[in-house]
Amino acid sequence: MKFGSYFLEEITPFESMLRRMDEVLEKRTTKFQELTLFRSGGFGKVLVLDKDVQSTERDEHVYHDTLVHPALLAHPNPKRVFIVGGGEGATLREALRHPTVEKVVMVDIDDELIEIAKELLPEWHQGAFDDPRSEVHAEDARAYLEQHDDTYDVIIVDLVDPVGEDSPARYLFTQEWYALLKSRLNEGGYVAMQAGMLLLTHHREHPVIHRTVREVFKHVRTYRTYIPGYFLQFGFILATDATDPLEIPAATYQQRLEERALKLKYLNAPLIAAQFVLPNDLIEAIEAETMVSTDAQPFWLDEEGNPHQTPL
Amino acid sequence: MKFGSYFLEEITPFESMLRRMDEVLEKRTTKFQELTLFRSGGFGKVLVLDKDVQSTERDEHVYHDTLVHPALLAHPNPKRVFIVGGGEGATLREALRHPTVEKVVMVDIDDELIEIAKELLPEWHQGAFDDPRSEVHAEDARAYLEQHDDTYDVIIVDLVDPVGEDSPARYLFTQEWYALLKSRLNEGGYVAMQAGMLLLTHHREHPVIHRTVREVFKHVRTYRTYIPGYFLQFGFILATDATDPLEIPAATYQQRLEERALKLKYLNAPLIAAQFVLPNDLIEAIEAETMVSTDAQPFWLDEEGNPHQTPL
Amino acid sequence: MKFGSYFLEEITPFESMLRRMDEVLEKRTTKFQELTLFRSGGFGKVLVLDKDVQSTERDEHVYHDTLVHPALLAHPNPKRVFIVGGGEGATLREALRHPTVEKVVMVDIDDELIEIAKELLPEWHQGAFDDPRSEVHAEDARAYLEQHDDTYDVIIVDLVDPVGEDSPARYLFTQEWYALLKSRLNEGGYVAMQAGMLLLTHHREHPVIHRTVREVFKHVRTYRTYIPGYFLQFGFILATDATDPLEIPAATYQQRLEERALKLKYLNAPLIAAQFVLPNDLIEAIEAETMVSTDAQPFWLDEEGNPHQTPL
Amino acid sequence: MKFGSYFLEEITPFESMLRRMDEVLEKRTTKFQELTLFRSGGFGKVLVLDKDVQSTERDEHVYHDTLVHPALLAHPNPKRVFIVGGGEGATLREALRHPTVEKVVMVDIDDELIEIAKELLPEWHQGAFDDPRSEVHAEDARAYLEQHDDTYDVIIVDLVDPVGEDSPARYLFTQEWYALLKSRLNEGGYVAMQAGMLLLTHHREHPVIHRTVREVFKHVRTYRTYIPGYFLQFGFILATDATDPLEIPAATYQQRLEERALKLKYLNAPLIAAQFVLPNDLIEAIEAETMVSTDAQPFWLDEEGNPHQTPL
Repeated sequence: MKFGSYFLEEITPFESMLRRMDEVLEKRTTKFQELTLFRSGGFGKVLVLDKDVQSTERDEHVYHDTLVHPALLAHPNPKRVFIVGGGEGATLREALRHPTVEKVVMVDIDDELIEIAKELLPEWHQGAFDDPRSEVHAEDARAYLEQHDDTYDVIIVDLVDPVGEDSPARYLFTQEWYALLKSRLNEGGYVAMQAGMLLLTHHREHPVIHRTVREVFKHVRTYRTYIPGYFLQFGFILATDATDPLEIPAATYQQRLEERALKLKYLNAPLIAAQFVLPNDLIEAIEAETMVSTDAQPFWLDEEGNPHQTPL
Repeated sequence: MKFGSYFLEEITPFESMLRRMDEVLEKRTTKFQELTLFRSGGFGKVLVLDKDVQSTERDEHVYHDTLVHPALLAHPNPKRVFIVGGGEGATLREALRHPTVEKVVMVDIDDELIEIAKELLPEWHQGAFDDPRSEVHAEDARAYLEQHDDTYDVIIVDLVDPVGEDSPARYLFTQEWYALLKSRLNEGGYVAMQAGMLLLTHHREHPVIHRTVREVFKHVRTYRTYIPGYFLQFGFILATDATDPLEIPAATYQQRLEERALKLKYLNAPLIAAQFVLPNDLIEAIEAETMVSTDAQPFWLDEEGNPHQTPL
Repeated sequence: MKFGSYFLEEITPFESMLRRMDEVLEKRTTKFQELTLFRSGGFGKVLVLDKDVQSTERDEHVYHDTLVHPALLAHPNPKRVFIVGGGEGATLREALRHPTVEKVVMVDIDDELIEIAKELLPEWHQGAFDDPRSEVHAEDARAYLEQHDDTYDVIIVDLVDPVGEDSPARYLFTQEWYALLKSRLNEGGYVAMQAGMLLLTHHREHPVIHRTVREVFKHVRTYRTYIPGYFLQFGFILATDATDPLEIPAATYQQRLEERALKLKYLNAPLIAAQFVLPNDLIEAIEAETMVSTDAQPFWLDEEGNPHQTPL
Repeated sequence: MKFGSYFLEEITPFESMLRRMDEVLEKRTTKFQELTLFRSGGFGKVLVLDKDVQSTERDEHVYHDTLVHPALLAHPNPKRVFIVGGGEGATLREALRHPTVEKVVMVDIDDELIEIAKELLPEWHQGAFDDPRSEVHAEDARAYLEQHDDTYDVIIVDLVDPVGEDSPARYLFTQEWYALLKSRLNEGGYVAMQAGMLLLTHHREHPVIHRTVREVFKHVRTYRTYIPGYFLQFGFILATDATDPLEIPAATYQQRLEERALKLKYLNAPLIAAQFVLPNDLIEAIEAETMVSTDAQPFWLDEEGNPHQTPL
């Protein structure tokens, strides 16, 4: 390790990473978070929000392909999409690539982050904020959905983990929140969500989320991918009362990719199906999980990664 | 990050990891490498050889399942197995679990490492060295194979990367070496190998290995998994002149798992098939690769991860 | 920085050090603290208590010479010495080198540390615990002095900093504590104490201690030295109602060194005098300081190094 | 240690420091070196050249007072001053404060560094480059002195260490170089130089420099100070054929400070004298040193800090 500038990230409770910064491009503080943008030899531009690397120029397609397209391709004709979070605009960008989509409503609490993204992160949004089908609101997503009863074909949830007993994000991981999402889905709709790192050696975050979502939806399926820029494997969840994702063959994804003339950098139809195939240890951990997060007892993660529920 | 003891690992040319050590259990130096064994909050015992984490108590099954079982399950009746490297004994252990196996010859250059493993790493070998079907030689694997013309049903290659222009490992990544392996395979045989981290943002190591193996074998297939203890996704290669791994259905793996009464901690039959499904960017990188490593121009990796071929 | 094992120490609120460990010799936990002993390329054995390097084999003489000898040489005939803290035995060792000394009473709260020191730190104590003039008590030094009215010619105080609002050490930095020390001094006696790192760019720790001691003693003099193993300059205080240390010429120290046949590795008579010569910025900071630590409002340091006084 | 941006500095061969960067102000690369300027919670602006912290806003007066004023105050009437190195302008600034000075010639090899300093480091130069008495040349100082036979009352040498067998700095640490400096001194002149960190536990850098200068000058005296921003104690050398610095009483320094109406932030007259008082271990190391660096066998430091001489 050579002398020079590094970003220190605590990627797990027991392992920290020093990322070499070739250049610090920006450092700004919003009401909600601190943004650092630097250039790295491996990943190009690296976007950090508070303590965590959020996205990198050279591998953001891995994350955004995996978050957005399985849900939109599971749906035969997605017209209206709702995005929770997703401030840097790449989730919006990918949703808009589906020609069936007529409207995407994105709600991110951090208005300053959205402004910064427009200015500094063109590689991420690529103009998506200016698409006439985009509607962006800077407010709390749960409050927004409680106050608006519009419904959607696909809802995509892209949130930070509920770390700390006081984390405001706790109320975006409860049974009641997932029920609210379900109530805003059209028939045949899907919810896709980022659902925590898969690191069973270290903690139970993903199993708790999975278990909680199961209280609300008929079909809840974990899928997963390795995100190079995080150096972690992440779990995602596709939830629906319509067709079980495991019943959708690769050929259906392939047909829809072709119909919609989509050429993705990372995902392809067989890989979407393959991402739902889980290893034995993860299957067992999900089946063994009993914790259900509720508004009365929302779960949160301590610094060691352990889940807790504090009664109000 | 709290004060205390850490192991610094340069996991890529641009990112380094500090791993918290709860306790340093051993530190020994052999003729070939330096061994550190420590206890970690996330992974239990962590084994480091020289600069790289090699294996951890709590996730070694991910790596060894993935390295060993696809090849042994692709073969309908594997009797004789050859292991290149694999000093800590877990590759041997997994190979011996197949009841069809009558003989496993393991050749690792580091005799001291094998002795240390016997003493300090019971969680890894679990007595495999004492199995009457095991035959362990401490010498250079290429020299051994050149001098012995015994043949095998499965060969498993578990080697360190050829980092540095002087790396002796360079001659275990060339076309001639793979041809030697092929000459020691029985008809219907398979070679499985660890084939470098998959980190396209950073380098071309895996594509070069894949391209070189293709010079020798009829069917060369990349498969992959995330290794939590490495915080990296690794590429593996299954090579054969017999049935193309992509033609083996999950049901065949399932049937052989049942016949052999194998219950694995990580892998299952659908997951083996799923591991061979690759993302678009990796498919493109493999197809675009042109570098072939030969004894005359063996490839090696510089500190930035770039592959080079130095004419002799 | 090469891969390998390191100790992470937060040496200031803004700068942390990674010290390469060639070998971890011991790690033990007592009721009061965690001890780590490792071997370093630069300093030999390095002793860490909790988060701070406490002493190193190759430079401990710098610290212990500076803490012990100025007080004992300032006194014409020191017979009875009291040591607060000093668990590893090197302060005791140096005090016993003065042939005038008939008795050294050492009180350190951590009995396990003393036992560990006897076993693992022979380079530090060099048998001092077995000297018939040594009397060692494992208890709280303030309680001990309150309960015993024996008096001494020299008192040496070697304590950790009062970091954190709950630090029990806070009561060993107050005006009342210094008054207690004074009440246990014979006429003509001296108190020497370690008095915090001198790092005016970062904080006011030393000026606050100096200011508080001034409430109690007629002559209070700061002296200082660089401690290589800490990578910091430390302040010490010599306090007395007898002869002002600034009035003691180097020739007096020299004469006493000769009378007592003392040959020190670090200190010499002119250097003792020179250590009392202070730079302008430190003189000004001491003069400007107004905070006096009392039992009613004991001072403590926050994580940024700022001093606070919390009313009870 | 919190997540965020840090500068990694290898301050010794065995210890590295991570300095928290509140903000990266600049990063530029010249023909000769890489400059990083960041803001730190403890030191304010921190200037790094290549791998080493060079100077900090809040403690640069410690270094520059110590490098410049002892020589200029040892001389009764310094008119002409020559500076080797000193690109950021603070050495120049301090020399110009002596009203006796009529001319300061500064030669630093890095013209871009001087331009950057003028623009970015006003806290350091404070306009010194614009003083009509200043004459700045961007070229190799040894070549300059060989080609110009002007002479000076005081020469100040502020150079980087000769690290590495190929270091061009090696030729600015040889007997022939010191003889060249002496040939450019007026009668009664003094040379002051930064002469390496004092860290006897780690290496012999300072003793070798001291021993080499002794081949050339009649009086060679080591003095020293702790530089907070380096976390190291540094050795300096004052060399002359005129009055031995040890023969100059503090009263003389005091008188000259008053005559020249100088009020320094760090140094005062008694402290200048005190800085020349050395501890026993350093005295012994200097006396024991036998290595003399010459143009034929210039000394250099390896990565472990050991001095070597390679015959041409």
